[in-house]
Amino acid sequence: MEFSEHIKTANVEDVVLRQPLHPQSRGTLCITGHHLLFSDREEGGSRQVLLLLRNVDAIEKRTSASSGTIKIKCKDLQILHLDIPGMEQCLNIAHSIETLSSLDTVSDMYPFFHRPSDLSLQGQWGLMPPGEHYSQLKEMHGAWRLSTVNEDYSVCPTYPPVVIVPKSVDDDTLRRVARFRQGGRFPILCYYHQKNSMVIMRSGQPLIGANKRRCKEDEDLLQAVIQGSDKGYIIDTRSSQQAQQARVAGGGFESKSSYSRWKRLHRHMERGKPLQESLIKLVEACGDASHNMDRWLSKLENSKWLSHVQTALSTAGLLAECVERDGHSVLVHGFEGTDSTLLISTLAQLIMDPCCRTLEGFLALLEREWVQAGHPFQQRCARSAHSHARLQQESPVFLLLLDCVWQLWRQFPLALGFSEALLLRLAGEAYSSDYGTFLCNSHQERCTLGLMENTHCLFQALLRPGKREYYSNPLYEHTELAIWPSVHPQSLQLWRAFFLRWTPQTRHLEEAQEEIRNMVIEWGKLALS
Amino acid sequence: MEFSEHIKTANVEDVVLRQPLHPQSRGTLCITGHHLLFSDREEGGSRQVLLLLRNVDAIEKRTSASSGTIKIKCKDLQILHLDIPGMEQCLNIAHSIETLSSLDTVSDMYPFFHRPSDLSLQGQWGLMPPGEHYSQLKEMHGAWRLSTVNEDYSVCPTYPPVVIVPKSVDDDTLRRVARFRQGGRFPILCYYHQKNSMVIMRSGQPLIGANKRRCKEDEDLLQAVIQGSDKGYIIDTRSSQQAQQARVAGGGFESKSSYSRWKRLHRHMERGKPLQESLIKLVEACGDASHNMDRWLSKLENSKWLSHVQTALSTAGLLAECVERDGHSVLVHGFEGTDSTLLISTLAQLIMDPCCRTLEGFLALLEREWVQAGHPFQQRCARSAHSHARLQQESPVFLLLLDCVWQLWRQFPLALGFSEALLLRLAGEAYSSDYGTFLCNSHQERCTLGLMENTHCLFQALLRPGKREYYSNPLYEHTELAIWPSVHPQSLQLWRAFFLRWTPQTRHLEEAQEEIRNMVIEWGKLALS
Repeated sequence: MEFSEHIKTANVEDVVLRQPLHPQSRGTLCITGHHLLFSDREEGGSRQVLLLLRNVDAIEKRTSASSGTIKIKCKDLQILHLDIPGMEQCLNIAHSIETLSSLDTVSDMYPFFHRPSDLSLQGQWGLMPPGEHYSQLKEMHGAWRLSTVNEDYSVCPTYPPVVIVPKSVDDDTLRRVARFRQGGRFPILCYYHQKNSMVIMRSGQPLIGANKRRCKEDEDLLQAVIQGSDKGYIIDTRSSQQAQQARVAGGGFESKSSYSRWKRLHRHMERGKPLQESLIKLVEACGDASHNMDRWLSKLENSKWLSHVQTALSTAGLLAECVERDGHSVLVHGFEGTDSTLLISTLAQLIMDPCCRTLEGFLALLEREWVQAGHPFQQRCARSAHSHARLQQESPVFLLLLDCVWQLWRQFPLALGFSEALLLRLAGEAYSSDYGTFLCNSHQERCTLGLMENTHCLFQALLRPGKREYYSNPLYEHTELAIWPSVHPQSLQLWRAFFLRWTPQTRHLEEAQEEIRNMVIEWGKLALS
Repeated sequence: MEFSEHIKTANVEDVVLRQPLHPQSRGTLCITGHHLLFSDREEGGSRQVLLLLRNVDAIEKRTSASSGTIKIKCKDLQILHLDIPGMEQCLNIAHSIETLSSLDTVSDMYPFFHRPSDLSLQGQWGLMPPGEHYSQLKEMHGAWRLSTVNEDYSVCPTYPPVVIVPKSVDDDTLRRVARFRQGGRFPILCYYHQKNSMVIMRSGQPLIGANKRRCKEDEDLLQAVIQGSDKGYIIDTRSSQQAQQARVAGGGFESKSSYSRWKRLHRHMERGKPLQESLIKLVEACGDASHNMDRWLSKLENSKWLSHVQTALSTAGLLAECVERDGHSVLVHGFEGTDSTLLISTLAQLIMDPCCRTLEGFLALLEREWVQAGHPFQQRCARSAHSHARLQQESPVFLLLLDCVWQLWRQFPLALGFSEALLLRLAGEAYSSDYGTFLCNSHQERCTLGLMENTHCLFQALLRPGKREYYSNPLYEHTELAIWPSVHPQSLQLWRAFFLRWTPQTRHLEEAQEEIRNMVIEWGKLALS
């Protein structure tokens, strides 16, 4: 497509930019197909601000006869103001920003044009292709196998082409099970606990419907999962009432009579619209400039965001307890198995598995459990907290994950190999990015669009020399132990570095982090010399 | 006195101690005149717990025929349980703890018996005798002088024997002014701002009463403070309504007509009972073991503690702005001038003056502005948040100060030379201590009791080699700039390391702090070698 048709005014002089944490400055504004570029001309060195238009969540404009102001609310929660001379110029610029920031065609997006000099489009895309994780875990090869039943995505459009299933279950059985599970998401292995060979499986809900339909193959598959052991657990991320009601629409749950050796536990986790509304309320509260302490605390409470954090961490804790302490395998699902399911399986792996806690390990975990596992990033992260557009499929599940990981990171400052800067970066990238990683809703869509040939992978970029240090935790010390988070309300905190990152006071904390990092690097040099 | 008359049972075997952050243990309990000593006999090394009885805020006992349990609620917010065999023994122990923890006679208290081997009772007591601060600031000698008018404490019983006053005002005038100010607390200098020669004065309220009495000498003294400059500010830490009502009881405020060149600003700061109740509510909320996030946030809001923190910091900010930005001298007072007045004058000095931000500088500031200035520690810190005793004069003003300093420390992690550990230590010491520093209500009382000859000084003890490092901030970098705190509600946080220090999750944070400290020490050694 031609971006130029959306750009009536490409350059404006004498624009004033007001941006948090910076003094106001005057300069030239330039609009391109993917960016808004501001260059100031103040004496004492020039300054450039480059904003990816995809980062724009919503804009507001106010014009008078001779000028106008555009307020840009970004998906990363930053709010910018541009004072633009000339009403027409202002309207043109506003129109370009509005149009270019909401383009729907994925292959028109910036990651397909981003060509940094120190990254190549050749070679492997991503940290590990689907299935490689299995190859590395030789211990599990006795009871588990890789299946290519979904090679052409016909069995489950949102699964990768290779998945891990019980060795005793053949592909034909999997095809039948897929028809009995929402979205074709038949139960697959996502985590193998080396200490006791127990596993975490995940899937979509069973489609028992009003008539309590059964599926022999589904029951057999789950039976194959627990093998010799006495029982397994199913953690359903819905209340038992929700699970009951799901039958009306053809969904449902695993009944005690058909799955006699599985114990079902229901934990109601908020998702979809209520979660999105919670984020909107929280961001609104964080931006409240009144000096009223009671109002702030009451708005914070009212947003319920911290309650969602608490529920997610405590459900993940329950999952990890089943596997690590009680020594049972667990199947996790809610409705589609693409949101809360991934949230708690990821957190449980961080709690139990030291390999997931290194910088590479954590990124590989996100690649497996979110990107390859089919979390619909494109739908969930289309808009962030400011948009007045009617919300469709938006929901900050991935952001909630990062917040929960931050709570772990804060409670165990030595146990995680990555820095808070990594979590902040990921929170931004999920909503707007130079990289292809968080585009599309599934592996299939990525392949169809040639995303792996035409965009760069964020995770690889984060591990480049020079970046890797910045995203590492200088205090990290490997521990084999599980890290059990406290989920007492008193133990959980607002993730200020994210939600209040554009308020001046957070800056000093970053300075301190920087100081610690420098100290460790210097220390390392001295120790080596 | 004989402590032994209060100890019917001195030793009990087979006692079970349950204490936060430790596994339960079984051992011998021993009661002495000042301590409760528990020694366990488990294999793998013995453990001793020594609790100063003065630290006990309240106890609860529950007995059966053959045993009993004593729940000890400490002033440092720790809660211990002792399971004691034998009902009579249990009652005896409980009685001893109750009696010995509430002894009123200061000279019977433990600081008069504490004799650590590495401290001597010879030499100077404290960091700086009253008046020495003046000697060091030669710039101010032109306009200010030391007065010994209060040498025998007859002019003002709660002031030190030496105070700083305008050079042009003689001692006779001071005597008259003292009769016009509550508690004899005539206006004295507490801070001289070297950059612009402006000062902070503090005093008790003027006793204008219902008849609007005037005092020419008081007006002259204040006139002498502003000298050539056009005006000064009075920050009254009460609402203007409170100040008006104070006239009924003989107090009042400086009227515009009598003090035409002083502009009065009223800032309502909570004190006394409401502040004490706020602390009690907060501590109750922190101990709530339910897992309900909404309830926690709502209790936190309802305690209003963070609102008091916000008010104190913003009033201190206002004071610092008057002096540093606007270049005016300020007089601060509320009612007595011994609580809120000291709170905001201390905070303003930390904001403006880099000398107060070093470890020694901060301790010297506390010595000048709290100990020598006559904050009634004995009355304010007799009980903490658990006591059911009818509260008299208790109020956590000093704790509120430490919380505000912590907020500054958190917002400016490089600008303060002391560690969080220091603030935690001071918070504990104010309520129960091995040292004499926080005993008594005034300098006069300390002299009468021979406290400076018979107890050790806490501040000196904290600066001993080996301790000093622990209480220093490894990230400290001197800055001449004022540190202006953000007082937005979103910028202020619960001081978790204090209020939640006995909950397990804070432990990991301490580990991280310890790690950073070790790193810096190692780094220093390497850099030197």
